[in-house]
Amino acid sequence: LKVFSLNSNEALAEKIAAQIGTKLGKCTVTQFSDGEVQINIEESVRGSDVYVIQSTSAPVNQHIMELLIMIDALKRASAKSINIVMPYYGYARQDRKARAREPITAKLIADLIEKAGANRMITLDLHAPQIQGFFDIPIDHLQGVPILATYFEKKNLEDVIVVSPDHGGVVRARKMADRLKAPIGIIDKRRPRPNVSEVMNIIGNIEGKTAILIDDLIDTAGTITLAANALIESGAKEVYACCTHPVLSGPAIERINNSQIKELVITDSIPLPEEKCIDKITELSVASLLSEAI
Amino acid sequence: LKVFSLNSNEALAEKIAAQIGTKLGKCTVTQFSDGEVQINIEESVRGSDVYVIQSTSAPVNQHIMELLIMIDALKRASAKSINIVMPYYGYARQDRKARAREPITAKLIADLIEKAGANRMITLDLHAPQIQGFFDIPIDHLQGVPILATYFEKKNLEDVIVVSPDHGGVVRARKMADRLKAPIGIIDKRRPRPNVSEVMNIIGNIEGKTAILIDDLIDTAGTITLAANALIESGAKEVYACCTHPVLSGPAIERINNSQIKELVITDSIPLPEEKCIDKITELSVASLLSEAI
Ligand SMILES: Nc1ncnc2c1ncn2[C@@H]1O[C@H](COP(=O)(O)O)[C@@H](O)[C@H]1O
Ligand SMILES: Nc1ncnc2c1ncn2[C@@H]1O[C@H](COP(=O)(O)O)[C@@H](O)[C@H]1O
Repeated sequence: LKVFSLNSNEALAEKIAAQIGTKLGKCTVTQFSDGEVQINIEESVRGSDVYVIQSTSAPVNQHIMELLIMIDALKRASAKSINIVMPYYGYARQDRKARAREPITAKLIADLIEKAGANRMITLDLHAPQIQGFFDIPIDHLQGVPILATYFEKKNLEDVIVVSPDHGGVVRARKMADRLKAPIGIIDKRRPRPNVSEVMNIIGNIEGKTAILIDDLIDTAGTITLAANALIESGAKEVYACCTHPVLSGPAIERINNSQIKELVITDSIPLPEEKCIDKITELSVASLLSEAI
Repeated sequence: LKVFSLNSNEALAEKIAAQIGTKLGKCTVTQFSDGEVQINIEESVRGSDVYVIQSTSAPVNQHIMELLIMIDALKRASAKSINIVMPYYGYARQDRKARAREPITAKLIADLIEKAGANRMITLDLHAPQIQGFFDIPIDHLQGVPILATYFEKKNLEDVIVVSPDHGGVVRARKMADRLKAPIGIIDKRRPRPNVSEVMNIIGNIEGKTAILIDDLIDTAGTITLAANALIESGAKEVYACCTHPVLSGPAIERINNSQIKELVITDSIPLPEEKCIDKITELSVASLLSEAI
């Protein structure tokens, strides 16, 4: 069994290798002068079960090409099996045709990974669990909720309510609430009439409660910070937020800093750049979870 | 028949559309906040023969993903046929395993394009013509030599010798020389013993001649500028250089400026960024050549 890391998430890869009692395989993943990806695998993989750790986080297209080229190289080097550990699956929000002539990029990515020659996928909290069906190879779909719930259990917060920031996340909020033996609430965003601004209607009794907002990913942090502020306005005592995948693009950090969120709990499925490490953010590791699946 | 341009080469795409008497199809190719590619095709393509113009030049991984996602969207929008016009085929130098455990990325790219759903490829001066065999769909492989030769014919240079900067380019130099009714020379780079620096041995009589160096692509311009300087040292009167694909990465422009090259003739298979437009470079268009193949 050999574990290789590409460029998206080396810190997590090191932890995973340590957990399963091995070292990362030797390989360099760099770029030629013109920006083309250059991969040198520096040890034999012939006959080995190989695990490649790569999140398709930003720069997403770069990280996808690194992964596909690595799979190609491993296949041609006679690896026995090529197993992809993808803590964050990029392009997952493009999982259906919502309008005419849209691509379904989440399916395209699945096809590309299989065509390159992968034999198995291990991933975490897909934006929609249906994406599992985009693959013909075996896929293990792990869940971040237990890790997040364990953290909040240890905090011994009182009078908790777990809140989903939209209707799509209710199942996830329900799982978290079961673990914390708490009720759930839902933010019911609605536009009463066209061209009238959205109303943040809250389903559930928030008054005096400690709210924990949960989502699979936080990107520009618009939804989650508006939700936090609406909860405080409706009488919540304090608001925590958590998610598995800290995409945190564009104005995200600024919005979180300026919001009513007391603490944001995330995982290391996507690394936080140094400059983003602000006091409000707590990072939990998915290394044990992933290494158990290997 | 509909022609769409992605982001690599819009100026060339406009020219191609004009040549075949149409306008570019409406589509926007942008990025979401997190860097994921977003494509909106803004007119119906149902039942149409669609041509997509995209060079996989830098940023190469971005341009490849734009192309694959566009193919996916067109396929799901019921285009009758999806034809890729790729003036410059990136990753073409990774076309074989030169060392153990190398990928063959040029083949991977071919597989990805087919898997996404393309029906036909039109491309220009592949780094190795064998890359045609990496495709199972029909591929038209066009040649830039006639365009470059016509330009030099019109200059009425005297006592011309066409020079290949390495052994791999002799066939191309031979074609150019036939058009210009000139002899050919070859730069025979050799390392006499390991750890001894390379010797630029010149095959052919250069003394007093006007040399035209020809290559398929110029990347960092190391080879071509060393060759030009060696030709002048061997008594060439003046040295021109030409290539189809101006990759021109890293130190390329500086090297060309500081070299003995009098004029560098290239095509618009890859656009020259504004800041790279220096006096020494002449750009010829491949728009007619490509539009004839459509
Ligand atoms: N990278 C992205 N950033 C922002 N929005 C996206 C992105 N990818 C897809 N989308 C949009 O998000 C919608 C899906 O999100 P959701 O409704 O939460 O499943 C799609 O209709 C897309 O238009
Ligand atoms: N983007 C690139 N930039 C520089 N060298 C490359 C690039 N891609 C591949 N190569 C190397 O160039 C060699 C092939 O070039 P050639 O011998 O001219 O066909 C390969 O052995 C690669 O190691």
